[in-house]
Amino acid sequence: MVEHQHVATDETRSLIAASKVEGTDLYNSQGESMGSIYDVMLDKRSGRVAYAIASIGGFLGMGADYHPVPWERLRYDTQLGGYQLDETIDRLKAAPTIPSDYASDSDWGSTDLGWRGRVDDYYRPVI
Amino acid sequence: MVEHQHVATDETRSLIAASKVEGTDLYNSQGESMGSIYDVMLDKRSGRVAYAIASIGGFLGMGADYHPVPWERLRYDTQLGGYQLDETIDRLKAAPTIPSDYASDSDWGSTDLGWRGRVDDYYRPVI
Repeated sequence: MVEHQHVATDETRSLIAASKVEGTDLYNSQGESMGSIYDVMLDKRSGRVAYAIASIGGFLGMGADYHPVPWERLRYDTQLGGYQLDETIDRLKAAPTIPSDYASDSDWGSTDLGWRGRVDDYYRPVI
Repeated sequence: MVEHQHVATDETRSLIAASKVEGTDLYNSQGESMGSIYDVMLDKRSGRVAYAIASIGGFLGMGADYHPVPWERLRYDTQLGGYQLDETIDRLKAAPTIPSDYASDSDWGSTDLGWRGRVDDYYRPVI
């Protein structure tokens, strides 16, 4: 019974609400703020969380740039209370962006801008 | 080049923004409205989209019940402009719920209520 409880707790603790991810701060590996997570992109086919959309710059929600970042590159840091991405702010600023209206296009929130390959290339580890 | 374009388009069209899923209508297989999708739960460990949180009933955003539904049970219907779930409204109403403050607990949006097993059991296909 105790073992069962333990398993159940572990399992449910592994979930996070997308609404909670949205608005969470984004830090570099030095703990310096780079912006925040604005949205999450889901892969309809694989059922995987594909990208976090990082919101950088802007003022009062206007004029920010939206940078898709591969989800698996983010680590949540409980001390900072936000996600860490092992990139400098300059490299993140130079990363591929998507238009601010990416979620409101006619294809019902699907994006069709060919950015996926560019984003994956940009964040591909150097071997 | 044409082939490459085709592949790239396919790939990006496979993405959907979580912010776009939130608020989308939920229908049964007869096309009758059952409520809407309120949120999405992500599995931090596997990187998969685990559950949609269906919001049923309520008024002006108050008093609704929140039912986690396994993500793979939902199909998007372009005619209806919403998700379809092959369950009756009565069976959805009787399905496990989670508290409305599920995303604001102290464990930073993780849930710890042991509901995951109950939800999976409820929606498990009858063999």
